[in-house]
Amino acid sequence: MNPKEFDLKGYLSTKRTLIDRALERWLPYAVGHAAPVKEAMRYSVGAGGKRVRPILILAGGQVVGASDHLLLPAACAMECLHTYSLIHDDLPAMDNDDLRRGKPTCHKIFGEALAILAGDALLTFAFELMTNPELTSEIQPERINRAVFVLARAAGESGMVGGQAADILNEGKTVEAQVLHYIHYHKTAALLGASVEIGAILGGGCEEDIIRLRRYGQALGLAFQIKDDILDIEGDQNVIGKPTGSDARQKKVTYPSLFGIETAKAKALELLNEAISLLEPFNHKAEPLRAIARYVIDRNR
Amino acid sequence: MNPKEFDLKGYLSTKRTLIDRALERWLPYAVGHAAPVKEAMRYSVGAGGKRVRPILILAGGQVVGASDHLLLPAACAMECLHTYSLIHDDLPAMDNDDLRRGKPTCHKIFGEALAILAGDALLTFAFELMTNPELTSEIQPERINRAVFVLARAAGESGMVGGQAADILNEGKTVEAQVLHYIHYHKTAALLGASVEIGAILGGGCEEDIIRLRRYGQALGLAFQIKDDILDIEGDQNVIGKPTGSDARQKKVTYPSLFGIETAKAKALELLNEAISLLEPFNHKAEPLRAIARYVIDRNR
Repeated sequence: MNPKEFDLKGYLSTKRTLIDRALERWLPYAVGHAAPVKEAMRYSVGAGGKRVRPILILAGGQVVGASDHLLLPAACAMECLHTYSLIHDDLPAMDNDDLRRGKPTCHKIFGEALAILAGDALLTFAFELMTNPELTSEIQPERINRAVFVLARAAGESGMVGGQAADILNEGKTVEAQVLHYIHYHKTAALLGASVEIGAILGGGCEEDIIRLRRYGQALGLAFQIKDDILDIEGDQNVIGKPTGSDARQKKVTYPSLFGIETAKAKALELLNEAISLLEPFNHKAEPLRAIARYVIDRNR
Repeated sequence: MNPKEFDLKGYLSTKRTLIDRALERWLPYAVGHAAPVKEAMRYSVGAGGKRVRPILILAGGQVVGASDHLLLPAACAMECLHTYSLIHDDLPAMDNDDLRRGKPTCHKIFGEALAILAGDALLTFAFELMTNPELTSEIQPERINRAVFVLARAAGESGMVGGQAADILNEGKTVEAQVLHYIHYHKTAALLGASVEIGAILGGGCEEDIIRLRRYGQALGLAFQIKDDILDIEGDQNVIGKPTGSDARQKKVTYPSLFGIETAKAKALELLNEAISLLEPFNHKAEPLRAIARYVIDRNR
């Protein structure tokens, strides 16, 4: 198959629909004495989102021959976990954002207390979905344990929460390259890497495949972050849908601000090539992951 | 063995030391770019605490013949999860408490953003500990999955978070018995019940033992909550260490305020008897659970 022929747009749209339907089915219904917290969970999960992380789980699993059906609970878990991080990041004590994807943030609608609780509940629900016996009976228990461990490591203080903490602690400071890398890697790449890795683990991949796919996901995650920073400088704000130049205004240290825009572009391209070369041993089953990697660099929004 | 002879004080003190040492060893060290969030995690976990939930895991496991060694990771996970709930409950947007157990609350020391993140990290770390391959290799993977699922269900929107949400949503309102029961059961009893159940699951208990021990834990949890409400009316504040009568001042609906103090006492006693009778098939290995149940009712603080 000619890689140029792969219909990424169609692929992403199909998988997104699949994930959205599963989330709709599995998220708790807003009934009972705690209904508003469940409503808040559903509101934030339903408020748009490209479903990148869950799609990476499905695409990672596909490389090792797994069906979407097998991986959907983990894919939904990953999206719940990602949504929790957005809800908490938006809180007044954190980034204090009123809007996300053009809609009021969770705490603007439900108040701070329920937003904190909805985030807590979504994080917890991710682990419930990962281990729900009714949804995971076809997966070897060892593999479920391992996937839960990978998810927790990538999400917690040694991963995403650590990155968010470092970001907050260094706000307004001129940070060194090492700190910038720590923040980029932990805030974004850790969870993207874990997504592909979890797909490979639950999908039944061998050790070598799992390691390759984790490394692909980490390279992809870093490239994604650098490209975001480049778009904030060079992007067309009509295409991106939000004002550009915000990093510069906030005096935020980014990869381009530290190393220059050309070096940033070269680094992103290097990471893309690394990601693609990691997929070399895999056949056409890795085509979605190849197309996603190219898209991350080529996109203009 | 005569039950009267069981040295509960010695038992609790020995287990508490064991748990405190393991927490000290396993909690992330406050190093690296995200050091303050790890420091906040350690601060709150280390700020006292009777370690009731983790001790219930050890005691529940002992009934089915498991060693403390096998159950310590799950016991520490439970304490991390409990601590996360305290940190988030104390936040300004929630109960807005400056002190807990006589010490400044997490957000008073580290600020709100880091307190939210420390809570998130502790909740996530609980699932990391439960599935850490270096610590859990002696447990059947099926049992670990099941314990993770029980923990998530008891902690999330269908358990503790649901109870906390219902409590906040009904603040200042005159609630019906049904709502009060929902809040009591979900906020406190769910996690206490899960603790004993998780001990039985990971300890290798049979299905019947697991169900009995879960029901014991739930009865214990409800009795504990009712006794707390009774102490707030009849307790000696010099013994309790905090002012009594706060429920009445806050016009909080409690079991005694709804049904009268005598009915509340009778209900607590009924739950104690239920808890003890559930332990009937077990021999002296259930002595700690029997003594804990009696203590919950007899205590004067």
